[in-house]
Formats: sequence, structure tokens, C-alpha cells
Amino acid sequence: MLGTAVFAITGVLAVSGRRPDVFGALVLGVVTALGGGTLRDLIVGAPVFWLADFNYAWAAAAGALAAFWLGPRLRAPLRPMLYLDGLGAALFAVTATDKVLRLELGPPAAVTMGVLTGIGGGLARDVLAGRTTLLMSREIYATPILLGCTLFAALRATAPGLDAASLICVAATFGLRALALRFHVEMPDWLTTRRAAED
Amino acid sequence: MLGTAVFAITGVLAVSGRRPDVFGALVLGVVTALGGGTLRDLIVGAPVFWLADFNYAWAAAAGALAAFWLGPRLRAPLRPMLYLDGLGAALFAVTATDKVLRLELGPPAAVTMGVLTGIGGGLARDVLAGRTTLLMSREIYATPILLGCTLFAALRATAPGLDAASLICVAATFGLRALALRFHVEMPDWLTTRRAAED
Amino acid sequence: MLGTAVFAITGVLAVSGRRPDVFGALVLGVVTALGGGTLRDLIVGAPVFWLADFNYAWAAAAGALAAFWLGPRLRAPLRPMLYLDGLGAALFAVTATDKVLRLELGPPAAVTMGVLTGIGGGLARDVLAGRTTLLMSREIYATPILLGCTLFAALRATAPGLDAASLICVAATFGLRALALRFHVEMPDWLTTRRAAED
Repeated sequence: MLGTAVFAITGVLAVSGRRPDVFGALVLGVVTALGGGTLRDLIVGAPVFWLADFNYAWAAAAGALAAFWLGPRLRAPLRPMLYLDGLGAALFAVTATDKVLRLELGPPAAVTMGVLTGIGGGLARDVLAGRTTLLMSREIYATPILLGCTLFAALRATAPGLDAASLICVAATFGLRALALRFHVEMPDWLTTRRAAED
Repeated sequence: MLGTAVFAITGVLAVSGRRPDVFGALVLGVVTALGGGTLRDLIVGAPVFWLADFNYAWAAAAGALAAFWLGPRLRAPLRPMLYLDGLGAALFAVTATDKVLRLELGPPAAVTMGVLTGIGGGLARDVLAGRTTLLMSREIYATPILLGCTLFAALRATAPGLDAASLICVAATFGLRALALRFHVEMPDWLTTRRAAED
Repeated sequence: MLGTAVFAITGVLAVSGRRPDVFGALVLGVVTALGGGTLRDLIVGAPVFWLADFNYAWAAAAGALAAFWLGPRLRAPLRPMLYLDGLGAALFAVTATDKVLRLELGPPAAVTMGVLTGIGGGLARDVLAGRTTLLMSREIYATPILLGCTLFAALRATAPGLDAASLICVAATFGLRALALRFHVEMPDWLTTRRAAED
């Protein structure tokens, strides 16, 4: 639930350069925090998690409003917030992978849903706010999530009794993201579409 | 159902400056009219309303096609159409709040779904048409809907026998929107994200 | 399933001018291939098809990755790919119409779902990639799909035993699209929103 609030906060901060009003900030923050999980629940046919426990929605709304009012003051320590956001995404994604694995839909579906949960909210926010989505950037954001969720599914398949699997995978996902942030690593050229003109 | 057609008409008019062809206008009008309610039904797990009664879809399609062919002639009286659109959104939102309250998901969820129904279709249209969504503008469109739905949930909780609750809340929602339209009121500065540079 | 892979390939090629990285290309290709069908399954309340048979997702992922790595070399024969894409969309749309007709939701709903399946994935891709959606262009892409699905529903209603109905309608849909591609036909002016200034 803390992850939900953090996601809402970073969601609002990400768009605050575009000057949404208080209602826009509220909606964008809540969409960032709840969007990925909502899509996951719809696709796997589970009850939507924030209708089952509305406290998730309150946490998201509180985070969004806090970011709206404190935003200009929070701007300075934006970098720590990026690390928190990476931690939140790692938590969300691994938890979602675990949830879908329990539904017996198979590991590949669980990994897909983990990635969707981790990045879906941010994608929805960027689309609604008219920003370029992370799919079009070279930032290393989603790749650690994909690797972490795959590792989790692999651990669950090979060592089902390993209690620390979640912890390990959240740490691995967050660690990769933190390294990318710390050293400003971007996707290498050979993993980026070349312009036709360059060939 | 009249509200559905009106929503489709205003949906097409809103994008006609971008010159969609007849198929684009049809899809955008229908999405505006049915999008919010579809999302609501998916999230609460109810059957999608226009599959249960396809007349809603016919009304939306008729409105969209009428707006496409008569659009240039309807352009002149656009302002009355904005009032009608405000009335349609108020009706949609309060009806949706009522519908979700009956599903016993709790008042906060019902208000959330009411707002989603009122603004969801317009958001989907703007995203598909490449327009700036209302979340990024300072127009007072969604705030009356939020207040009206909250008032409705409060009335239902405190005076469950009050038959006029719907009427009162639709009137309140529409009244606020009409005042904002009439006097060109925008969100005040303190409810809008300040630029960091201004601090 | 071949159609799924082709859709993923054309999905990646369509956005490769914007230089997504490998992860972005993967997501956009998969969304193009699976997005329309996912939306259809959610709305009609059926289990999502690629969770029921994950091979669809593998085919989409393989197509997307192939297009990413071979993209610059495939660029030259882009036109044949547009024909293949038209064939894929025709197959998807008619199959979806058939599927929804069997759910007894009525022919108009089935046609709506057929069109949604045919164009939904491409719309989602364009929104996520920040491209202008086909709704805003004058290309003749969706109209053949609408006509083909309508023809299919009509044939099923009037001649339920006609085994060749699918084949006829896929051929008609693809034929119209191919003619439009071959002769560079665009929507005529009277089917395009006129600028107010021109009246």
C-alpha cells in the first residue's frame, strides 16, 4: 500500500511540468498507481483489487494530493523519488507475478502480467498526459522488471519452497534499475532500432 | 439514451477540426458516448450495458453520423451543445453512481465509478484523436461531476428514501458546469500546479 | 496464429521510424497483435484468448523480435507487408465476428466486435507510440473491415449453412483493402469532415 502511494506521488511529479490542475493531478496520480493492477485483474478475470479493498484507492489519492500540494517543494529531491519509484515498480511486478502464478495460468502468463502491472500505470498516465511513453525512450526501466519477474517464475518452478524468492527478485529488479539510474546507463545501440538511413 | 446520442454528437464536433473521415468520426463519437460506461462495467464486473441493450450503440452511431454530416451547419450553435454535453455528463455520472451503489461496493467506489463514467468516454476520444485531454486543461468540467456524485452518495447514505436525490444531484452538477461555462471560470491558480521556476 | 505473428511484425515496422529499443518494440508488437482480441474478450466477457492458449503470445513475441532485428533489412519490401497486414486484419475481424455470433449477442454486436478486433490492436499501438491513429487519417483501412464483417453477419443470418461464408468475407475485406493500396485510393472529400472555413 505504501508502494501505491509512492507510485501516485511519482506519477504526479512526472507530469507536474505540464501544469495539471488539482483534479487532473488526482486522476493522473491514481491512474499511475492503480492502472497496471486494474488491467491485470481485468485480463486474468480476478476482482479488481482496489474495489475489493478501497484502502488502495485512498492511498493513491492521498499520495496524488500530497504530491500536488508539496510538489514544488519536493522537486529538489526528485532523484531519491526515482529510486523509490523503482522499488515500488519492483514490488508491484513481483507481487503480481506471484498472484498470477497462484491462478495456475502458467509461468509465461504470470511474467507477462507482472511486467504489465509494473509498467501499465505509467503507460496509461503518459498517454492521458500526452507525454512520450517509456516504450519510445531508451531508459532502462522495464528490462529489469522483465528479468526480475522471469527470475521469480523460474525460482518458483525450480525451488517452490524458497521463501526468500520474492525478496531476491525484488532486490534484483531494484538493483538493476538503481544501477541504471546511478550510472545513467541507456539501452545500447544494438538494442535500439537503427534508422534505415544509417544502414 | 438521449444522453448517449448527445455525447456522440459533441464527441464528433470536438474533433471535427481535425478532419476525420466518416469512419473515424463514427468510431470517435461512439467511443465518447459508450467508453466511460464500458470501462465502469468492466471494472465492477457487470455485463457491458450496450451489449445488454444494443439500442445504446445505435443511438451513439446515429448521433455520430448526424454530427458528421450536419457538423459544419451545427458549428454555429456550439455553445448550446456544450450545455447539453454538461447535462449529459451529469446524467451519466449520477446514474452510474446509483448503479454501483446498488452493487454494494461502497460509496467511495460508487463515486469513483460515477466520475469515470462521466469523463472516461471523453478521455478515450481525446487520446485516440491525439488531442490534449481535459486532465491537462484548466476547464471546470470534472470537478462538478465529482461534487455531484459525492453529494448523491451522501444523500443516499443519509436519506435513502429521498426520491428526488438523483434530480437534485444532476441539477447541482449541471448548474456548476453551466456557471463555469457562462462566466468562463477556470481553475484558480492555487489549484493548478505551479511551475518550479515561479517558486 | 500466423496472422498474429504478421500483425506483430507490421506493428513493429510501423513504429521503427521512431527508434524504440528492443523492449519497446516487443511490447508494441505484442500490443498490436493481441490488443484488439483482448479488448473484444473483455467486453463480451469471454476468457482472454492468449491466456487460454499462450502460443498466440509466443507467436506475437517472436514476430516482434524478428521485426526488430531484421527490421532495417525488411524495410525494402514494406509494401508486400502492408498486403499481408490487410490479410491478417481481414482474418482477425471475420473470425471475431464468427466467435461473437456464436455467443448469441446479436449480429450488430458481432460486427462491432469484429471491427474492434481488426483495428483495436493498431489503435493501441499508435496511442502508446504517440503516432496519429488511423481514425484521423483518410486511408481506407477500416471501411473494408466494417463491410466484410457486415457481409459475414448477413450471410450467417440468411444462409446459415454456407461453409464458404468466412472465406468469401475474408476475400472481400482483403480485396477492397488491396485495391485501395494498389491504386492509392483515399476517402473521398464528401466522406471527410470539411473545414468550417471552407463552407
